Amino acid sequence: MSHQSTQQGINSSVEFSVALHQQLANSLKVLAIEAVEKANSGHPGAPMGLAHIATTLWHHLNFDPQDDQWSGRDRFILSCGHASMLLYGLLHLWQCGLKMDDLKAFRQLGSLTPGHPERGWTKGVEMTTGPLGQGVATSVGVALGQRILDAKLREAGSSENHPWSKQRTIVLCSDGDLMEGISYEAAALAGLWQLGNLVWFYDDNGISIDGKISISWHEDCQKRFEAMGWRVLKADGHDTQSLLSAWQSVENHTGSQPTLVICKTQIGYGSPNKANHESVHGSPLGAKELALTKENLKWTHEPFEIPQIVAQYYDLNAQKKHQARLEWDQQYQVWAQNHPKANDLYLSLSKSLDVDTLMAELIPVVSASGATRKLSNQALVKAYELFPSFVGGSADLSGSNGLVFPQVKAYSASQPTGTKLHFGIREHAMGAIVNGLNLSNTWKAFGGTFLVFSDYLKPAIRLAAISHIPSLFVFSHDSFKLGEDGSTHQPIEHLFALRMIPNVIDFRPADGLETAVGWAYGLSQKTSPFCMVLTRQDLTKLNRKDGFDPKEILKGAYLLDEKQGHLAQSITFVGTGSELQLCLDSASVLNAQGYHTRVISMPSMHLFLKQDAQWQSDLLGHQLKNHLIVSVEAGSALPWKAITGLNGLQIAMDGFGASAPMEALDLHFGFTSKQVVDRVLDRLK
Amino acid sequence: MSHQSTQQGINSSVEFSVALHQQLANSLKVLAIEAVEKANSGHPGAPMGLAHIATTLWHHLNFDPQDDQWSGRDRFILSCGHASMLLYGLLHLWQCGLKMDDLKAFRQLGSLTPGHPERGWTKGVEMTTGPLGQGVATSVGVALGQRILDAKLREAGSSENHPWSKQRTIVLCSDGDLMEGISYEAAALAGLWQLGNLVWFYDDNGISIDGKISISWHEDCQKRFEAMGWRVLKADGHDTQSLLSAWQSVENHTGSQPTLVICKTQIGYGSPNKANHESVHGSPLGAKELALTKENLKWTHEPFEIPQIVAQYYDLNAQKKHQARLEWDQQYQVWAQNHPKANDLYLSLSKSLDVDTLMAELIPVVSASGATRKLSNQALVKAYELFPSFVGGSADLSGSNGLVFPQVKAYSASQPTGTKLHFGIREHAMGAIVNGLNLSNTWKAFGGTFLVFSDYLKPAIRLAAISHIPSLFVFSHDSFKLGEDGSTHQPIEHLFALRMIPNVIDFRPADGLETAVGWAYGLSQKTSPFCMVLTRQDLTKLNRKDGFDPKEILKGAYLLDEKQGHLAQSITFVGTGSELQLCLDSASVLNAQGYHTRVISMPSMHLFLKQDAQWQSDLLGHQLKNHLIVSVEAGSALPWKAITGLNGLQIAMDGFGASAPMEALDLHFGFTSKQVVDRVLDRLK
Repeated sequence: MSHQSTQQGINSSVEFSVALHQQLANSLKVLAIEAVEKANSGHPGAPMGLAHIATTLWHHLNFDPQDDQWSGRDRFILSCGHASMLLYGLLHLWQCGLKMDDLKAFRQLGSLTPGHPERGWTKGVEMTTGPLGQGVATSVGVALGQRILDAKLREAGSSENHPWSKQRTIVLCSDGDLMEGISYEAAALAGLWQLGNLVWFYDDNGISIDGKISISWHEDCQKRFEAMGWRVLKADGHDTQSLLSAWQSVENHTGSQPTLVICKTQIGYGSPNKANHESVHGSPLGAKELALTKENLKWTHEPFEIPQIVAQYYDLNAQKKHQARLEWDQQYQVWAQNHPKANDLYLSLSKSLDVDTLMAELIPVVSASGATRKLSNQALVKAYELFPSFVGGSADLSGSNGLVFPQVKAYSASQPTGTKLHFGIREHAMGAIVNGLNLSNTWKAFGGTFLVFSDYLKPAIRLAAISHIPSLFVFSHDSFKLGEDGSTHQPIEHLFALRMIPNVIDFRPADGLETAVGWAYGLSQKTSPFCMVLTRQDLTKLNRKDGFDPKEILKGAYLLDEKQGHLAQSITFVGTGSELQLCLDSASVLNAQGYHTRVISMPSMHLFLKQDAQWQSDLLGHQLKNHLIVSVEAGSALPWKAITGLNGLQIAMDGFGASAPMEALDLHFGFTSKQVVDRVLDRLK
Repeated sequence: MSHQSTQQGINSSVEFSVALHQQLANSLKVLAIEAVEKANSGHPGAPMGLAHIATTLWHHLNFDPQDDQWSGRDRFILSCGHASMLLYGLLHLWQCGLKMDDLKAFRQLGSLTPGHPERGWTKGVEMTTGPLGQGVATSVGVALGQRILDAKLREAGSSENHPWSKQRTIVLCSDGDLMEGISYEAAALAGLWQLGNLVWFYDDNGISIDGKISISWHEDCQKRFEAMGWRVLKADGHDTQSLLSAWQSVENHTGSQPTLVICKTQIGYGSPNKANHESVHGSPLGAKELALTKENLKWTHEPFEIPQIVAQYYDLNAQKKHQARLEWDQQYQVWAQNHPKANDLYLSLSKSLDVDTLMAELIPVVSASGATRKLSNQALVKAYELFPSFVGGSADLSGSNGLVFPQVKAYSASQPTGTKLHFGIREHAMGAIVNGLNLSNTWKAFGGTFLVFSDYLKPAIRLAAISHIPSLFVFSHDSFKLGEDGSTHQPIEHLFALRMIPNVIDFRPADGLETAVGWAYGLSQKTSPFCMVLTRQDLTKLNRKDGFDPKEILKGAYLLDEKQGHLAQSITFVGTGSELQLCLDSASVLNAQGYHTRVISMPSMHLFLKQDAQWQSDLLGHQLKNHLIVSVEAGSALPWKAITGLNGLQIAMDGFGASAPMEALDLHFGFTSKQVVDRVLDRLK
């Protein structure tokens, strides 16, 4: 990966001088515009405008080019993910694993350089970004994790200077990030939580896709952030000294305020005809303007060629950073010896448990019956005991969501060892912050709200799914059966909205055993977000056959009950969660009339659909003749036809809910066993 | 509806004195807590804390108790919808149509008083609220509509004092509303747009569900709003004089800044043991505390009894308000005579066109082929000509979404007659503001972004659906075929996420004709939100049989092509949008091999599913033997089984997208005709 300069070739000319900085920035710019040009697709404007800032930051950030998983690194998040070529250029120049050929394959199928940065795909990409606002909001979770770790290590007897004590979370963000509501929610929490280790560098270029930013933005950004407890610095984003002194202020900052650095920049800086204009945002410069830009930058090198002085700088500094990492390893050893308790705590945070162990732990502590939100609470109380890394909370619905933990301290600025979080009524930021905490190998984080409000954090759930983050989401009040709050609070399409996001695991348990097994599965996840969907109302324990193996639940569906009948007609009910009892009751009535009845509990459609197709078919009873499959779930009907077949019956909701006590709604929406039986018999006619 | 006092029984004691105000507030409080107690469900705390504010506001608001649709009324939005009993109490006392028996049926099935206020269900409820943040954000759209109307009337020659010139939009909101990110987005736009007619009264009670607000909120609210160009007043929310002077300031305000009135209150004010505590938020007081509260308030009346002085106040003032409305009618007649051009403009705003007329207008102006986002743009350019009330824009993706209107002026504070909106990168507020504009009978509003970012505004789309608002949403870049931007920008589950919201109309056209017909349908809607889903890439015109009636498209699906074959096997392709050409190509190859092939275009699954079941079955070809149905859509697979049956084939996406040129992705994801044909043949084996 070396740029072929030797140690002795490096001299004082690779000091971070204004002249060198210009060269470094230009290298990054030219790489970006060449790659965009070659791909004939991409965003040149932001990398050009951000090149000075990014080179300044990476000069100072702590990271090890040879190990992107080093726990001691600062976290760098490119919130404006469309500036991906900026990051790819840095990852190449800093010898982090991207080769020049990777840059040349920008935005091509299977390359390490997709249009927006993807975590887990390209080494050194801390998080997947692109959807604006997610990066800044997620960074609050990352920084919070660092803050809690610091506090916990000190509580465990560490000195103030421990291996992670100087860690920062540094973000580059754009106007778009700050316009998104999620950025306000997240910034408010960062201020409340006093995350002095968090810094957002804001690319204040005055241009958005539709034109001058003034057509859609006129706020006093400094005042806005100060109102939320941030300190605000200003810098000239193209001036070395200005950026260095901003960085100095960041480095010297030991206070508790997060920092916003407003960097005045020009989008497309360096392009003689397109700088400071929206046309440079999302399209290649074009051959002519590319040539003019290189001329303007006095850039005489071949495409994708790096000047020697620049190569020297990166050779030296990549080595320096790696060297610092090796020194850190030694310091860590010393610290670990001197602070065994703190080190034990640290090591315990990465503890993971497999699903079998978790089932053994959770099944005994979860009651058989009750509202599943309360049963879930019992499991999560235990999870706090099992995982020192367990952290999370609710968007101001702790009691309602079953997220009450009397033994757990709440996090606050004055109690930073607390691991119970109060997100306030900020579901979207909650989703992103939970993602940010789970991005580390340190924390196992969860967040909760009502199922109907999963809509508010859907973009964060999707981002977890796309970037393999095992975030845990707790969604209570899972159907119209929540009762009087009415249609605005009653989910309908939400279960399938979650189920249809690739890589999202849904789980809607029907009683205590399913709840315990569900959490055992959820808490063992490494690469998939997990959504636990829970009732407000009480449920009764399901009667299972003797010798039932709880592991059957992990297949997503299992035969709960089967009763032979003297008639030739078979009826299989497939239900989830609170509707299982209705399935059993209805089956019982029909069996008494002579029908062969079967009841399948399907707590997780995601897991069911991952099973072998033949097994699925056998379980559903496709081999039976004269067979009707009936799905029962208080939500959307349409996708259930994928389970029941077109000739099956869906007991479901065909519109919005209503406000009334649950029993009245059951009758109103046809969720009594008499109504279900009548519909089945009607269909069999 | 009269409270049985007579005109002569009214005397000076019904002046809005401190003593009377106390009685008015207490009446409202007691109604709320009695109704919650009777329902054994609901939120007493907010109505108790807001009673003084609400009675002050409604004393001053312009409305006609006998006509909730009077165009001259101020708009009042209860953003904290859980305080519904406050609104129901006001609507009863002000004789707006709710009877005492309605209050007694609070939260019961079918009553006019559901758990959260529902527009179109209860007279006088301006919008459905409950999901926090939506009310405040929607109010920005309502106020913007008032502002544009004012400017347009003046431009059309009206005097400054026209019948709608003093209209205001007044909102009551809670901490929760202001914590939600959407409130920041919307407030930023209200400041930018200088909506001096907008006032938010903020119930600053210091308590949220999880406890003291300080655990999740510490911002300087005044500073935050000032940073966005608002003026901020402070008031004691329980003090008559303080509230009256805040109101006076609102009434005297002729400036361009929206106003936030921070009202210090106590949640549950009046309850001796529960005031100022989270326990009073969401549960009945209980019989004992209810009695103590009444005692504390010196309330000696029977449950649901209104004191005579209070009844007198409402009798008199309800009549006064109605009288003012009658005077307004006369003033309107005079104004209309004096300002015929302005009046013509006003009357033209409520113009609606039926779908046939719109088809006749749009089909000729939309090209046959091209990217449907561009074809859509042609239709919408025409819509601006057809509807003087047409207004909307994009969340900073005007060009990308096909929302470019060179002939239309952009709205800005200095150009308030403009009807092209720049929402900035604020999708969620955009959704709510579009809803707010469409809440009136005045404006026909639309908003656009990429389909993948429909997630960001999903809660607003859902609220439009639940409350019958015909908002228009434009979602471009509708599949992986957008290419290089990669997986974060490529929708997968989004089409079904929209389709499964009850009352949402999906439309994904395959060429110019379908685009024109789709917009004809969308623009004719009165009670359903409409989502137009569009390609980035070019599409070619579909060849239809001679004499094809474009109205067939309105059934949601139609037989586009059928070719007989000599083999006994029939194959029906069902595709949407850009996948139609692939269906035709694949069918062509298979027909050449002897198969009987059929191709169905299904631009709107919502409309298809509304048709007669037999018609659906016939169109899909269920009557055919040896028949395979193949769905082709670059999104989720599972729900398509509801169309294809379990034995059908779904050409779909089983994971996230990727970054590459479209052609490479087509091959990668199996969307070439060769791959489709191979899969079909494989299935037929």
